[in-house]
Amino acid sequence: MKQRIKALVEINDNNGSRVFAVCIQILILISIVTFTLETILDLEPETRKILRGIETFTVLVFTLEYLLRIYVANKKLKFVFSFFGIIDLLAILPFYLAFGVDLRSLRALRFLRLFRIFKLVRYNRAMNHFTAAIKSAKEEILLFLFITLILIYFSAVGIYYFENAAQPEHFASIFDSLWWAIVTLTTVGYGDVYPITVGGKVFTFFILLIGLGIVAIPTGIISSALTKSVEPDSE
Amino acid sequence: MKQRIKALVEINDNNGSRVFAVCIQILILISIVTFTLETILDLEPETRKILRGIETFTVLVFTLEYLLRIYVANKKLKFVFSFFGIIDLLAILPFYLAFGVDLRSLRALRFLRLFRIFKLVRYNRAMNHFTAAIKSAKEEILLFLFITLILIYFSAVGIYYFENAAQPEHFASIFDSLWWAIVTLTTVGYGDVYPITVGGKVFTFFILLIGLGIVAIPTGIISSALTKSVEPDSE
Amino acid sequence: MKQRIKALVEINDNNGSRVFAVCIQILILISIVTFTLETILDLEPETRKILRGIETFTVLVFTLEYLLRIYVANKKLKFVFSFFGIIDLLAILPFYLAFGVDLRSLRALRFLRLFRIFKLVRYNRAMNHFTAAIKSAKEEILLFLFITLILIYFSAVGIYYFENAAQPEHFASIFDSLWWAIVTLTTVGYGDVYPITVGGKVFTFFILLIGLGIVAIPTGIISSALTKSVEPDSE
Amino acid sequence: MKQRIKALVEINDNNGSRVFAVCIQILILISIVTFTLETILDLEPETRKILRGIETFTVLVFTLEYLLRIYVANKKLKFVFSFFGIIDLLAILPFYLAFGVDLRSLRALRFLRLFRIFKLVRYNRAMNHFTAAIKSAKEEILLFLFITLILIYFSAVGIYYFENAAQPEHFASIFDSLWWAIVTLTTVGYGDVYPITVGGKVFTFFILLIGLGIVAIPTGIISSALTKSVEPDSE
Repeated sequence: MKQRIKALVEINDNNGSRVFAVCIQILILISIVTFTLETILDLEPETRKILRGIETFTVLVFTLEYLLRIYVANKKLKFVFSFFGIIDLLAILPFYLAFGVDLRSLRALRFLRLFRIFKLVRYNRAMNHFTAAIKSAKEEILLFLFITLILIYFSAVGIYYFENAAQPEHFASIFDSLWWAIVTLTTVGYGDVYPITVGGKVFTFFILLIGLGIVAIPTGIISSALTKSVEPDSE
Repeated sequence: MKQRIKALVEINDNNGSRVFAVCIQILILISIVTFTLETILDLEPETRKILRGIETFTVLVFTLEYLLRIYVANKKLKFVFSFFGIIDLLAILPFYLAFGVDLRSLRALRFLRLFRIFKLVRYNRAMNHFTAAIKSAKEEILLFLFITLILIYFSAVGIYYFENAAQPEHFASIFDSLWWAIVTLTTVGYGDVYPITVGGKVFTFFILLIGLGIVAIPTGIISSALTKSVEPDSE
Repeated sequence: MKQRIKALVEINDNNGSRVFAVCIQILILISIVTFTLETILDLEPETRKILRGIETFTVLVFTLEYLLRIYVANKKLKFVFSFFGIIDLLAILPFYLAFGVDLRSLRALRFLRLFRIFKLVRYNRAMNHFTAAIKSAKEEILLFLFITLILIYFSAVGIYYFENAAQPEHFASIFDSLWWAIVTLTTVGYGDVYPITVGGKVFTFFILLIGLGIVAIPTGIISSALTKSVEPDSE
Repeated sequence: MKQRIKALVEINDNNGSRVFAVCIQILILISIVTFTLETILDLEPETRKILRGIETFTVLVFTLEYLLRIYVANKKLKFVFSFFGIIDLLAILPFYLAFGVDLRSLRALRFLRLFRIFKLVRYNRAMNHFTAAIKSAKEEILLFLFITLILIYFSAVGIYYFENAAQPEHFASIFDSLWWAIVTLTTVGYGDVYPITVGGKVFTFFILLIGLGIVAIPTGIISSALTKSVEPDSE
């Protein structure tokens, strides 16, 4: 009996387990949609009731699934404290903690329920390629994330000295300038803060010319590492 | 007779069929320009009349071409329900449906006429490279589109919790926050919605640092797949 | 005598010609700076006089260089109508045309003088790599520029139908929508026009998800072609 | 004695020197955080006192480290005028120059203290990969930076002629137009300046279509050079 449940829940090479996995994925999607709909303020009470019903149902299924996973695990504690063991628990915990208590005060806790979506990833075989690629280029990615952070900090200090006097409300401290630096160097450019002095504009000119090359490198590293790790499989 | 029309319409290796293909392409371009001009509100009635005349002419030619394609096709039904068969029909259908009826109410249907431009692609030999490249990297592209969608959803939920209280008009629900997430993670950054709380800004900081690397990966995959599929042909 | 001038002006493998080329490059830079400074409105008359003097000097040198190039060319007419022959002429022509005539009315003609900067490129040996790379990938670049143009047009038509009723001042016709499409798909996102209806936002969501992958491909093709054409030389 | 200090300060292959390097790195981070906090205007006097104390301590340690580095260097003058010798001095100089003098007037000098963060880079072994990659592709990077600059200048002149009459406050001279050109071609797009005339918009359309391909090339070159120089080491 335990072996059959194990085959259903853990191993993905038979028809039964594939149906089970697809059902769980559909339920995760339904629970995400429900969660998204519930944040709309002006819902009618009846719609809210239906959404609450769907949520209760999905949480009960997830709880059953969580208990089954603990039951079939060879090393129960190891599963409970594994990455997906914790995510599985976090996906159902906010629901039970909210029972009988005022929901509004626990609103922030619901944020954790979002981890539920990570479960979608578990079943995806191709994900292993990505993990391997990230691991092989880990050192370079960290180095360039570090250089990017230095560059962002350097840009923030520079713009602070140029713009602080002219726009004290936008560039009040280096913390505020950091917001400008990340929005500019990632080329998002909302337009809420931008330099207005000649010095600040010239500084931005050079930071953009040099900076964009640096900031784009981590992307290039991930991309090339991925191509390398994918290639052997496709041959 | 049927064989000669078939050679003219379907096969692209003789002079006659090349002239035919170029003429159809020019007509498609003319019909696109006509369609674009017609959306200008303050046109003079005479200009509108001329545009209408050009449109009638192009549609008649396209109809003739469509009927010829059905005539020469070996399996007529297969052509009618093929991708380009449907596009050919959609390119002429709105014109006939609009006859005698009020045009304004059918305005949305004209949107379909846009499919006409896809016909331009049919004659392009180099397109096959692209299709092959997309097919070879299909699995990776889908995986990263999926990860990108998770990231966009995750960002939307995060910013909703940080900014909902401070800017209820811009971050009213997770649906509204999704608009912010796509505009930010694609680095478009219109500036219509952006975080103003310290928490929201710090959250955006980290989402941008991590997220841009993820979002740029599908582009890298397409690009590398294209290079691989193009290489053998150019040697 | 003619051979010595030819060696000085045309061939770049002796010391004399290198000094000559560097002098011309410096003069081009000076003339660009002069041209830029002249566009400042509130200059003092004396400064303007000095700038005018520098300009006259550089144009005289460029004229002498142009005449020498014609003199040493084996096929004079071929040089005059070559790419750089025309640019050399366009670089000096606006100056002579402006003599004795009102300068303000000829202001637009001065725009041509900008071509002068292209002369900087002539002396750059490494430029050949780039030209070779572009040539080898010409077909793919054109195909993707074409697909990008179709995508931009398609986006413009789509947003026109979604936003025309809600924002008639920004999305008055497909021409106006094209401005939105190019600014959005290149991720510039000024924020002067953006969708406000739910339909327009959802449409933008999908266009950005699909479109950014397509728009970025020409860049990837140029980049990869460049890497390939540079490699053999560096070994 | 001198040899033991040398082993501690300069060479990074024993436990003692690693502990020393980590301590210096932590101190650099602390001094950066202190510096950032001090720019907040409405700090309480006591907090300012504590920050000042931490700063004094870090500067004293950095001074001691600087003197030790001079002491153990074989060629003392060569170290003092080396890149990191100058940065080490600039990291502590502003502190001593500010003693006893009015701090406000010396505010700009504190900008130099930012160089302190570059010291973080010194200890990073993986940095060598990056330096090698940059060196191997130096010629191509410079060429494309140059082409990018020409393109930016060309765009600025073009938009100046199109928009100067319509928006004299934003496109007053080519200098002002250069700000628009860099913000647009790097796709930052703050939205503080953008074309409003039809001519300016059409010009921007073509500049973006062609320009983005050119501007993105230096990034591609750095990225590919990095991949090449990293590969042999990882095998």
